[in-house]
Amino acid sequence: MNNPNEHAIFLMHCSDQQGIVAAVSRFIDENQGNVISLDQHVDSATSRFFMRVSFEIAGFLVPKDQLADYFSTLVAKRYGITFELHFSSRTPRMALFVSKMSHCLYDILYRWQSGEWRVEIPMIISNHENLEKVARQFDIPYHFLPMNKENKAEVQAQQMALIEEYQCDFLVLARYMQIIPPDFIRKFPNRIINIHHSFLPAFVGAKPYHAAHDRGVKIIGATSHYVTEDLDAGPIIEQDVAKVSHKDDVADLIRKGKDLEKIVLSRAIRQHIKHKLIVFENKTVIFD
Amino acid sequence: MNNPNEHAIFLMHCSDQQGIVAAVSRFIDENQGNVISLDQHVDSATSRFFMRVSFEIAGFLVPKDQLADYFSTLVAKRYGITFELHFSSRTPRMALFVSKMSHCLYDILYRWQSGEWRVEIPMIISNHENLEKVARQFDIPYHFLPMNKENKAEVQAQQMALIEEYQCDFLVLARYMQIIPPDFIRKFPNRIINIHHSFLPAFVGAKPYHAAHDRGVKIIGATSHYVTEDLDAGPIIEQDVAKVSHKDDVADLIRKGKDLEKIVLSRAIRQHIKHKLIVFENKTVIFD
Amino acid sequence: MNNPNEHAIFLMHCSDQQGIVAAVSRFIDENQGNVISLDQHVDSATSRFFMRVSFEIAGFLVPKDQLADYFSTLVAKRYGITFELHFSSRTPRMALFVSKMSHCLYDILYRWQSGEWRVEIPMIISNHENLEKVARQFDIPYHFLPMNKENKAEVQAQQMALIEEYQCDFLVLARYMQIIPPDFIRKFPNRIINIHHSFLPAFVGAKPYHAAHDRGVKIIGATSHYVTEDLDAGPIIEQDVAKVSHKDDVADLIRKGKDLEKIVLSRAIRQHIKHKLIVFENKTVIFD
Amino acid sequence: MNNPNEHAIFLMHCSDQQGIVAAVSRFIDENQGNVISLDQHVDSATSRFFMRVSFEIAGFLVPKDQLADYFSTLVAKRYGITFELHFSSRTPRMALFVSKMSHCLYDILYRWQSGEWRVEIPMIISNHENLEKVARQFDIPYHFLPMNKENKAEVQAQQMALIEEYQCDFLVLARYMQIIPPDFIRKFPNRIINIHHSFLPAFVGAKPYHAAHDRGVKIIGATSHYVTEDLDAGPIIEQDVAKVSHKDDVADLIRKGKDLEKIVLSRAIRQHIKHKLIVFENKTVIFD
Repeated sequence: MNNPNEHAIFLMHCSDQQGIVAAVSRFIDENQGNVISLDQHVDSATSRFFMRVSFEIAGFLVPKDQLADYFSTLVAKRYGITFELHFSSRTPRMALFVSKMSHCLYDILYRWQSGEWRVEIPMIISNHENLEKVARQFDIPYHFLPMNKENKAEVQAQQMALIEEYQCDFLVLARYMQIIPPDFIRKFPNRIINIHHSFLPAFVGAKPYHAAHDRGVKIIGATSHYVTEDLDAGPIIEQDVAKVSHKDDVADLIRKGKDLEKIVLSRAIRQHIKHKLIVFENKTVIFD
Repeated sequence: MNNPNEHAIFLMHCSDQQGIVAAVSRFIDENQGNVISLDQHVDSATSRFFMRVSFEIAGFLVPKDQLADYFSTLVAKRYGITFELHFSSRTPRMALFVSKMSHCLYDILYRWQSGEWRVEIPMIISNHENLEKVARQFDIPYHFLPMNKENKAEVQAQQMALIEEYQCDFLVLARYMQIIPPDFIRKFPNRIINIHHSFLPAFVGAKPYHAAHDRGVKIIGATSHYVTEDLDAGPIIEQDVAKVSHKDDVADLIRKGKDLEKIVLSRAIRQHIKHKLIVFENKTVIFD
Repeated sequence: MNNPNEHAIFLMHCSDQQGIVAAVSRFIDENQGNVISLDQHVDSATSRFFMRVSFEIAGFLVPKDQLADYFSTLVAKRYGITFELHFSSRTPRMALFVSKMSHCLYDILYRWQSGEWRVEIPMIISNHENLEKVARQFDIPYHFLPMNKENKAEVQAQQMALIEEYQCDFLVLARYMQIIPPDFIRKFPNRIINIHHSFLPAFVGAKPYHAAHDRGVKIIGATSHYVTEDLDAGPIIEQDVAKVSHKDDVADLIRKGKDLEKIVLSRAIRQHIKHKLIVFENKTVIFD
Repeated sequence: MNNPNEHAIFLMHCSDQQGIVAAVSRFIDENQGNVISLDQHVDSATSRFFMRVSFEIAGFLVPKDQLADYFSTLVAKRYGITFELHFSSRTPRMALFVSKMSHCLYDILYRWQSGEWRVEIPMIISNHENLEKVARQFDIPYHFLPMNKENKAEVQAQQMALIEEYQCDFLVLARYMQIIPPDFIRKFPNRIINIHHSFLPAFVGAKPYHAAHDRGVKIIGATSHYVTEDLDAGPIIEQDVAKVSHKDDVADLIRKGKDLEKIVLSRAIRQHIKHKLIVFENKTVIFD
């Protein structure tokens, strides 16, 4: 028998066609599942159908370990559905990458510590030493792996070994400021979350606050996205902005931007952890 | 046969129970309807289930004029569902009430004229003469009905006669500034849309910008809501806010507030016209 | 004697140095001017000093028509100040350029008609016919000058002749959608206000809402700026944004964007009309 | 001789009259001070003049310890100016009060630790034990003083003794959730900063998120204000808001509200620390 209180979450997409919602909801209903939430979206430009459905599986007739198989056979194959299945009892494991700045790090650790998020943070990786004291404050292993041109490949191999050792599901770059190698990206597709300190696609690349100040913008932003092989061009998860004025120098933009960055990154992490996202053709559908 | 391109829209709610989505979507699917959008929400505090579903009825097996009956018999009665049924071919008819200020009036008339909204505005009613020229700009009949303590009941009877003559479905108070009598409210439950020039429930009643200035708030707001018998206490449809500072005197708040009021009122009207709202226990569920 | 109730407004900038505020305020004080508002700003990166000061000149000892001379001789030359002088009794005259869309046009005309702005709008120029009816609603001359590759230079000459005939001080491009020729820009430096339908510098050029939709942004924006010879790269006056989601198709972005565009453009026009702006090195200082 | 790099900051207000800016700026200029920033505001409703001016005092002719006297004699008395004088070399000392929730506490401690703020936090006082671990993370003394009806007066005396012992200048209530006694308020007028978890004046008092949910608002807020003897009615320093929907239950409002609360409180603290505020007749003038 399945765990009482446990939920199953399907994230699915396929080309739009008649009867999908009926088929999925009948599959759940006939097997004694109780729908908690069901959100669907049809993208009118591409005629793509997206759905997130969560349901209680305490008394579900299909055993948990066969649920993906049954759904695949009875529903997904028939409609050409691509799907992911998650269970609420499985706690996601985050590998946290940082450099020198602590604002996002504290925001993440506070949420984890206070129980706001259901997540494990088994370790922190950094190319700088100075945030080790923060990791120690929260009793999380901190791996200081200084990187330079010579040792890059070696350090990246160490990083990957740590991710595997700690069995991390996804990576969060909390102002990590280093390029992620393609093999990481291929290994963790739509599982590496970055925060970029601009309102993308404006100010791609380095020093966006300096660029924003030079351009004289009246609003700054922050963007959280999944990392892809194109720099700062992956699927956007969350963005937010703040008003600025001629009175704000670059240091003010950096200071105000930090408040945006930490909130935007934390919101994106939450959507990922709660399985509220579908990525399709470099865009996100967020069932919030 | 039903009109090609026509959609049916169900708005429904009932106590939450297993199988509702499956039952509704099966009803649509088995009768050859094609779901365009389906949104559902379960209010966790009250265990109330809400759903909006729209579907193409070109080839629907149940004739349009029997759709409500069939749905009632086959689905709604079984689950205790309260529902409304709308058809996209039916254009809603708005009775527009104004006093002296033109900002909301122009915003509404521009949207109507440019085709942004699918709505009829057969007439405008006012207790002041000065906006007649705006009505004339747009060739809409303007009924100037000056009101005072003595003639109040008589004028209200004239207003109601006009609403009936023009076959209006719903009323919009575009800064009308007069109390609506209870019999209007009972006749048009959740069909009278007001804009209040504050962030409700702060600053109920008259002169909210003066009150906001006195209190020294750093943000002002506007609230669009359905009118109920309790002043400024009806179900909130839409709210928005703007930052202000000590530099803003009352006249500045009024000026900045007008930009909020017109946008907030127009957004609320759009939700009403597009049948995106369910009202339950003095709150709105908005499927946007 | 000067007009009672009249104000003089100085906008000035120079390299930062000790004693400027004292010198300017003493000049006003000693000649019996009463300061209404004084705002100054020092840009820390460039050490540039900016100031806007307005004062009542009813009893001012220096006659109005000699004020610029006296200020120049007694203060400006000494500190190397570049300044503009405006008087509140002079009403600015706006040449309004439109194409097919009416949302900005109505927003501007409503503000003018209701007296929210102190401005003259002597005429409207368009390369399309369809907004002539709007101009007629407000009794403003409408000059329909269709433009094509062949007649471009000729039409632009006609436009300039109209601007001169109507003695316009500044130009507003209310979604005009045509490139402004360099001689217009040189003739009206920092006096041509455009609204661009994106959050600049993202999505420069044509079809920004399509580009925003393709990129999957979660926020759209609008930017009002002075026109310079570089496309969409002039000094930014005002920006604002709105949240969007995967549910919004391009048509939704366009619709939501219109509400931003009209408000952002109108705010920028207001700053210009009220002489609250200084442009320096392609950026604006806004004393709001 | 005065400290190089040191600034003096005057905050002043008086009834509006001709020549004040000239008098103050001349006082600074003639004594070899270099103005860094000067902001003034005249409240049109009350004809009250407000000004903040900061200037370098390295080579100032008046010694630092006589600056207040000289200014008083030469300027303030003549114009009836009420003023405060601050020096940039003096680091303000904050007494931090908390209860059970850590979100504001972490946000404050991170800013202090990272050097974002120039402030001392010599100790934390709480009526609960559970945040002691946070204090220990940052090596700040934590005084756990459990309070009940019987020991209230005694505990408040202990609190005051600690504030005096640690020489605190101002108090921050970081979701402290206890009523502050009138003698504290009188001893620290406009020096006790609170965060209230609503958009004041809506939802004064306990459980504002529950009240917001009951009312069905579409936007929630947070308000930071100075504590006065009227509950939640003191001068507002900073407010911000976030959109919510019918999908958000009370727990969601609380979660989203926490992000508002911490940012709003931290912004208010910054204004206080940087001496950017004047309080007059229960409102704030903020020179930001």
